[in-house]
Amino acid sequence: MVVNVDLANARKAVSFPVEELTHFINGGPEKTVRRRWLRSLVDPQNDPIFSNIDQPFLSRDQYYILMIKRLKKMLQLKKLHNLQRDDWGYLIIFAMELSISTLHDLFFTPTLERQMSEEQSSKWLPLAKDYSILGCYLQTELGHGSNVRKLETTATYIHETDEFEIHSPTLTSIKWWPGALARTSTHGILFARLIIDKKDYGIHSFIVQLRDERHKPMPGIEIGDVGPKYGYNYNDNGFLRFTRVRIPRENMLMRFSKVSRNGHYSTPPHAKIIYDTLVSNRIGFLELSTLFLSKALTIAIRYSLVRKQGDDYKDLNNENLILDYQSQQYKLFSGLSLLYASFFNKIYMQKLYENYIKNIGKIDDNLMAEVHASSAGLKALCTDLVLEAIENARQSCGGHGYSQLSGIPNVLTYYAHLVSAEGENTIMYLQTGRYLLKSFLIAKKGSSIGGRLSHLSFYSKILMEKCAAETLDDLLDAETQLCAFRHMYLRLLSNLDTSIETSAATHPHGYNGSIADHMIDIVNLSRAYCHYTTLINSHERLQSVKKEQSAIYPILRALIDLYFINAVLNQFGDFLIDGYYTPHQISLLKQGQKKLLNIIRPEAIGLVDTWEFCDNNLISALGREDGNVYETLYEWVKMEPMNILERQGKTVGYEEGLKDILTGKYLKEIKEIEIGKVKPRL
Amino acid sequence: MVVNVDLANARKAVSFPVEELTHFINGGPEKTVRRRWLRSLVDPQNDPIFSNIDQPFLSRDQYYILMIKRLKKMLQLKKLHNLQRDDWGYLIIFAMELSISTLHDLFFTPTLERQMSEEQSSKWLPLAKDYSILGCYLQTELGHGSNVRKLETTATYIHETDEFEIHSPTLTSIKWWPGALARTSTHGILFARLIIDKKDYGIHSFIVQLRDERHKPMPGIEIGDVGPKYGYNYNDNGFLRFTRVRIPRENMLMRFSKVSRNGHYSTPPHAKIIYDTLVSNRIGFLELSTLFLSKALTIAIRYSLVRKQGDDYKDLNNENLILDYQSQQYKLFSGLSLLYASFFNKIYMQKLYENYIKNIGKIDDNLMAEVHASSAGLKALCTDLVLEAIENARQSCGGHGYSQLSGIPNVLTYYAHLVSAEGENTIMYLQTGRYLLKSFLIAKKGSSIGGRLSHLSFYSKILMEKCAAETLDDLLDAETQLCAFRHMYLRLLSNLDTSIETSAATHPHGYNGSIADHMIDIVNLSRAYCHYTTLINSHERLQSVKKEQSAIYPILRALIDLYFINAVLNQFGDFLIDGYYTPHQISLLKQGQKKLLNIIRPEAIGLVDTWEFCDNNLISALGREDGNVYETLYEWVKMEPMNILERQGKTVGYEEGLKDILTGKYLKEIKEIEIGKVKPRL
Repeated sequence: MVVNVDLANARKAVSFPVEELTHFINGGPEKTVRRRWLRSLVDPQNDPIFSNIDQPFLSRDQYYILMIKRLKKMLQLKKLHNLQRDDWGYLIIFAMELSISTLHDLFFTPTLERQMSEEQSSKWLPLAKDYSILGCYLQTELGHGSNVRKLETTATYIHETDEFEIHSPTLTSIKWWPGALARTSTHGILFARLIIDKKDYGIHSFIVQLRDERHKPMPGIEIGDVGPKYGYNYNDNGFLRFTRVRIPRENMLMRFSKVSRNGHYSTPPHAKIIYDTLVSNRIGFLELSTLFLSKALTIAIRYSLVRKQGDDYKDLNNENLILDYQSQQYKLFSGLSLLYASFFNKIYMQKLYENYIKNIGKIDDNLMAEVHASSAGLKALCTDLVLEAIENARQSCGGHGYSQLSGIPNVLTYYAHLVSAEGENTIMYLQTGRYLLKSFLIAKKGSSIGGRLSHLSFYSKILMEKCAAETLDDLLDAETQLCAFRHMYLRLLSNLDTSIETSAATHPHGYNGSIADHMIDIVNLSRAYCHYTTLINSHERLQSVKKEQSAIYPILRALIDLYFINAVLNQFGDFLIDGYYTPHQISLLKQGQKKLLNIIRPEAIGLVDTWEFCDNNLISALGREDGNVYETLYEWVKMEPMNILERQGKTVGYEEGLKDILTGKYLKEIKEIEIGKVKPRL
Repeated sequence: MVVNVDLANARKAVSFPVEELTHFINGGPEKTVRRRWLRSLVDPQNDPIFSNIDQPFLSRDQYYILMIKRLKKMLQLKKLHNLQRDDWGYLIIFAMELSISTLHDLFFTPTLERQMSEEQSSKWLPLAKDYSILGCYLQTELGHGSNVRKLETTATYIHETDEFEIHSPTLTSIKWWPGALARTSTHGILFARLIIDKKDYGIHSFIVQLRDERHKPMPGIEIGDVGPKYGYNYNDNGFLRFTRVRIPRENMLMRFSKVSRNGHYSTPPHAKIIYDTLVSNRIGFLELSTLFLSKALTIAIRYSLVRKQGDDYKDLNNENLILDYQSQQYKLFSGLSLLYASFFNKIYMQKLYENYIKNIGKIDDNLMAEVHASSAGLKALCTDLVLEAIENARQSCGGHGYSQLSGIPNVLTYYAHLVSAEGENTIMYLQTGRYLLKSFLIAKKGSSIGGRLSHLSFYSKILMEKCAAETLDDLLDAETQLCAFRHMYLRLLSNLDTSIETSAATHPHGYNGSIADHMIDIVNLSRAYCHYTTLINSHERLQSVKKEQSAIYPILRALIDLYFINAVLNQFGDFLIDGYYTPHQISLLKQGQKKLLNIIRPEAIGLVDTWEFCDNNLISALGREDGNVYETLYEWVKMEPMNILERQGKTVGYEEGLKDILTGKYLKEIKEIEIGKVKPRL
């Protein structure tokens, strides 16, 4: 089909080098080439198993079967091309999002590697890497999610047989939610309370076989699917109930803590906290955030350059492209600014992680503790904002955004689980907030803090600052942006510290009670601080972009400036309340917001095209690369099963009731219904 | 089952008379009795057709068939008990939400009544009221939604045969989205451009037969389902393409405009604007908003009184009920405050509408124009906030909120279409905003404005005001609340007016161009004004509650106070920027927010129970009346089709691919794949 003329014109008007940005996103031109090659492997033109075209019409089981068939094909490709970790990770996320094998490769196998003794590894790792076993991660229970310490499943050591007895002692202890549990996995890494001689040693991990060689559940194991979800329905999240299942003692993962043949428990005296899983999971969340938000924005921005609505006051015979409305720009370009800010967060976390892995043991523990604490809030802020931005993108498509054929509901409902997965967001904010409060107490006592919080030593000076900028340019200076958020979050922190201490003095439950009475404020503080770190991560990286890839610098800078302005204007009261900003400065920022929307407008299509999504990947009639939105909608509805039936001469519902209604037959069937006295329900 | 002890205790601790509030919500004790009786008619114990228990597991067609069968049964009940408009409307929304018959009864038939000549009515109305025909509303097209004036479908008068020829001249002119179109309706009210002798007379309405007596599409009519949607999937939203379909001239709805046998077009010289449809539709939206939000909150609050998580610092062996966390209270009680504020908005609009209907023609047109303009923004603000509140309720249920068995995704995805239906929300805000700007211009010229904007005459005085309140109680005085929002919105209005005028003077496209550059501000103004009217509507009604139902007054007042505080604190910069509030006053409001959360905490369960939802209506394992959340989840997953298959010995996916992977067979099937050079996609 011919490319829609408005969309084609918009592409011509882009002024920055789109491919250079693609290279930047991928990490260099070689990586772009590599990724394009990888994507070509799973092109539906090579094998129809990679076609997603009928995805909106599939039932849960059809979709799951498609994914299993696809996984088989992909494992063949993996073997054939000897794909290693990075390539394989990219490919499965591209072609299967996060499902089945992803969980095996990204969570199960690495956990075995990290937590098994050498002897255990030599037995299990080859099986896992060969896919002779497929695994899942059995943590969450029906009654317990984020509070891991309260998990109820027990693993009781049986001296006589040198085994553990795994048991689900209560209804609430049933494992619930683990991905790939219901049908895919043969084995699981189980989190359970270790009990030896009636003593509870807390949560430890074990490897447990779930299904036998005919893929039937093992004795004592009840297993099933948790049923339909808001999204992500092709993934087989499952439940699992143990009834006194025995496993050999050697199935406890014993790299660190151990249980000996005589039931003696030992654990390293100074157990080193392992941050890498948590940090790498959070990188994964940022990766998914950019992936899903860029998909939603690609759809919405392409559609907004095709869809026309409302009279053009310059020419009453015309209608405007909806992307020409300021309100539409505000919705979508705020999303773009968040997308690129999240991307800079991801780069920062990745570098940090690589550095950590390279220098394991040599990096300051306090620094890692800081990263751990502040990345909790960053995960929460990022997933909260991205979920909102995806919903905004959906709404910006008007009525058609409500159709599954737009592709956005699928992106939205998949992404939505990230706000509660791996630590519910409010709990994440509180972790960061409490870390800040703790650090502030240290700073108040005159001790210095390392890493990014070193400025706490000068807190009283920072609290006195006012912004002196006189023009928009001054306000948008990178250092000035950082100072503004540093001041603002620190004011919140200092006020909160005072308020907590004051109320703790008379609170019946002291400091803890006072903290509980300040949860709203702690969450607010945490969010403000995470905006600050996002701006640091963005501007640090922008500095090197300015030097190395100068052609893409101006537009990236404009996006981060917009991120900054939005973050200020969404809570500008917090900048006014102590006179840090003047009303005039706020007014300059409001003007700046509109200027930036105008700057981004001609570049918007380039900023989404650069992610190089193909039609098969977006599964969206609205986000078509060629802009043939309406043709595609009209073509796709032909696949709707009820339309196929109608074409075959059967109207669903007619024989089942409509006919009786329309012919009046229903009236002849009326029977009296007994009605007793009805009481209030409760 | 026994009621969960924490939930039972919470119910005992409620201090206000819950049933009295139920009466208030229903409009009096007699109405409560009546509604309970109506609900008993559709109790699944009377007829399993009313059971929703397996709803989460139904496919689109199964669900649609269930609704058709249910409709037949309900029409029998209607006949049997001679149910009239109000009762029937309540019953179909209760048992079927907004679907199929609702659209026929609430939109199709009333439109015929309003827009047909007497002769036409006598022919068509009996058919519609008998359900011998079922109808839909054919407005939206593939390429045009809110901009009705640009619809493309044509109705061309054919002199020779005295007919109209209905035609879809373009792909984008295909009717798209109408509810109940795809399979249910036999007839439709069509919006099309009237063309006589090549002259275009604009959009008019026609009645068109869509299906014949065997329920097959009429010649020239292509009809189908628009495919799966984000939610609301049992409703058969359809598409429709006309190929030169002839209808008699008498099928144009001719109460107002007419076409005679010789093709002469006439229209009343001073066509009276008909507000009642628009206003009654917006009442419908407020009704649905309270219905869906009360459902989501009932689920989330009951669950929050059962779910325990996190250590109780007062007793480390205990875990806290999650409703005891301030952050959880903030999420859910903000939702409650919005629920009751929306309810007060609905009452206001209803009274206004009743008054209008009673005194048709006698009411000041300007007043009705104001109501029309301001209710547009109210629809937008209400649906925006309610959608967010439902999503917050979903998130407040943590991981289990992601399950369809929680019931919340269903509520959320159904409700989500209301932000774009009947006028996309941004367009609605702009209508209200532009009305305010227009009124302000009048006031500036010294003319007075009637109705709720009469205070515009004193705008300069209001702009000078500062809040003098010294205590929280003073700040929360009803009049003081209203003054605060009146001042704030008026400041936005006055600043905006100045800014638009200033930039219009030099804008290449003058005033219209300047307006287009201020869309963000107009939306903000409109939202601020709608908060103001919501507070007026609430406090006006609270005055009479105080007198007549004093026992429920304190808790309702607390909820509205919380609504007020949240509305201020979400944008307190707008109250600080000109010194209307002092930082100290903001700090008092923050304390007040927490106080109110504490006041509402023991009453929360009463505030949701009072809506009297039964388990069959909520379709939620988390929102169970008896609090047996985990038992229900565990019971319900047994209905998952893939679990049924597993119990029958078949694991979905095993034979289709898993077996080959686990046994290594997949490696033997590898064939080389040709890979050419891959080029950039765009």
